[in-house]
Amino acid sequence: MRVTTIHGTRDIRLEERPAPTIQQSTDALVRTVAACVCGSDLWPYRGENDITVGNPIGHETIGVVEEVGSSVSHVAPGDFVVIPFCHCDNTCLVCLKGMQAGCQNLGMTQGGQGEVVRATQADGSLVTIPVSPEEADPGTIAALMALADVLPTGWHAAVSARVEPGSSVVVVGDGAVGLCGVLAARELGAERIIAMSRHAPRQAIARLFGATDVVEERDQEGVARVLDLTDGIGADAVLECVGTDSSMKQALRSARPGAMVGYVGVPHGVNLPINAMFGRNVGVSGGMAPVRKYLPDLLERTLAGTVDAGPVFDATMPLDDVAEAYRAMDERRSIKVLLRP
Amino acid sequence: MRVTTIHGTRDIRLEERPAPTIQQSTDALVRTVAACVCGSDLWPYRGENDITVGNPIGHETIGVVEEVGSSVSHVAPGDFVVIPFCHCDNTCLVCLKGMQAGCQNLGMTQGGQGEVVRATQADGSLVTIPVSPEEADPGTIAALMALADVLPTGWHAAVSARVEPGSSVVVVGDGAVGLCGVLAARELGAERIIAMSRHAPRQAIARLFGATDVVEERDQEGVARVLDLTDGIGADAVLECVGTDSSMKQALRSARPGAMVGYVGVPHGVNLPINAMFGRNVGVSGGMAPVRKYLPDLLERTLAGTVDAGPVFDATMPLDDVAEAYRAMDERRSIKVLLRP
Repeated sequence: MRVTTIHGTRDIRLEERPAPTIQQSTDALVRTVAACVCGSDLWPYRGENDITVGNPIGHETIGVVEEVGSSVSHVAPGDFVVIPFCHCDNTCLVCLKGMQAGCQNLGMTQGGQGEVVRATQADGSLVTIPVSPEEADPGTIAALMALADVLPTGWHAAVSARVEPGSSVVVVGDGAVGLCGVLAARELGAERIIAMSRHAPRQAIARLFGATDVVEERDQEGVARVLDLTDGIGADAVLECVGTDSSMKQALRSARPGAMVGYVGVPHGVNLPINAMFGRNVGVSGGMAPVRKYLPDLLERTLAGTVDAGPVFDATMPLDDVAEAYRAMDERRSIKVLLRP
Repeated sequence: MRVTTIHGTRDIRLEERPAPTIQQSTDALVRTVAACVCGSDLWPYRGENDITVGNPIGHETIGVVEEVGSSVSHVAPGDFVVIPFCHCDNTCLVCLKGMQAGCQNLGMTQGGQGEVVRATQADGSLVTIPVSPEEADPGTIAALMALADVLPTGWHAAVSARVEPGSSVVVVGDGAVGLCGVLAARELGAERIIAMSRHAPRQAIARLFGATDVVEERDQEGVARVLDLTDGIGADAVLECVGTDSSMKQALRSARPGAMVGYVGVPHGVNLPINAMFGRNVGVSGGMAPVRKYLPDLLERTLAGTVDAGPVFDATMPLDDVAEAYRAMDERRSIKVLLRP
């Protein structure tokens, strides 16, 4: 089968490899209907993370179950499913606490930008989509594709930041996750949603997703603008959707005393200023999203049409063009690219 | 009047100084009924914080209002009151959000270990105690004294850590604040409360306050013991009541995936390991306690007798012996000393 692999900085290839097989009785094999490139794939692509040369890459996939292990009973061949990028049994003590991203049998999608993907803990992880992939139009496929990672991750930022009805919210980061954070904040009832973005196409999606205000300024000017928009005190909840030290500082300074920063960008060189946080009672909470926890609710909202994160995909390419998909996102020509095998 | 002053490392003196006067129309002057030494007073005492030589020290006082500024209407001379260590107007936008420790007119008790104390923002800050100080027995005075800082601070740790009915809780720190954190966790419905303490008298108070388990071990052994007591996953909520790097690390490692660490110890050299926090979805939240927010509830519980933080005071001394009070706490001969003028 064809699968996307990484060979070095800015060296992405589509290669022929043996298809994955069932390795544990809890596994399922899923034939890809759609996949995509994640902002976090750009870290290794840009040489910011160590890689193993030739390793498969990609962790966002939806598809049709092809084969299941002997102990799998919740899904069957033919089912159209979302594979959460982090797999969980959904029955262990940590899952029962609602933190499926810390499952005691945690697995991760490997080679998700490939034709067949192995999902571990299939019974706990996979969520069936009650439409057939043939029936689904491209817009629906895009909305469903967002459920594997990017929407639940933005959602996790909003939940971690304790967005409530009536909250004022700042979203730092105008990538696909940040945009989904805007959408999540809207769905959770935020009254004022300030998207920090300098890029017109992203600003447009932010507004489509519910942003009431856009702030183009950064650093001190950005904070000043946020204070202008929040009665001079800062936002009730801040979503940090980048993962750099400067974005985290921007987030912390945009928060009012007593607020939480929900962060979902994998931290790269972030140094938390604990004394400033203590002085202002601003907390931080976040991490890898417990996708499976949010999925049933988000799938329902998506199928009902009340939530549609599909617009974060501003390009669709055949899997053969995966290297170009990475380039387009790296060069910020594209927000997020959907891949069809 | 007599007031406690600090002149250098381990140099505490009781000196004659002019009594404070009304400086703003929102001030009140309060004649001390009881005061006490805070764990945080030991930082400058031990030379860990910079000081101004000869400055008054102390910030925990209860007493009787002696004089009020022209705009004060909620309290009057003769009222027995708690002075929250951080003063607030309780009407600004930040106070209305429930974060009175970030009040836009924030004040702090200065010279609280003295005979007369000036409270700023008296209408917002002071809470009247509906008993007379003459009627109150020493046990009641101690319970009321705990309301100015130590009990609301322990309470803030528990609230910040999101203790809920049924939670498993770890409390790091067996000082007076940590012990009050145990009490707060019990009141908020925690099912299992693990106090980390090596000192028999403190362990006894922890058990009196609701600790179900005591762990004497520290570092990796301490974490292993906590895991033993929490089904191998760590606690739902952790209270960090010390403020050092090692206590924060202990707290973070004792938390289960998805848990919060509520921290109220002023951070001294704490370095937050953000990648480990992200990897386990363990957040931190805390800071200076919004005492005024919690006070009406805590006063009611205290007068009803359901909450009594008085036992954290294991010694009472006359104000004349304040230097000995600091020594006793510094040498850990005493947990917390109550002072009577």
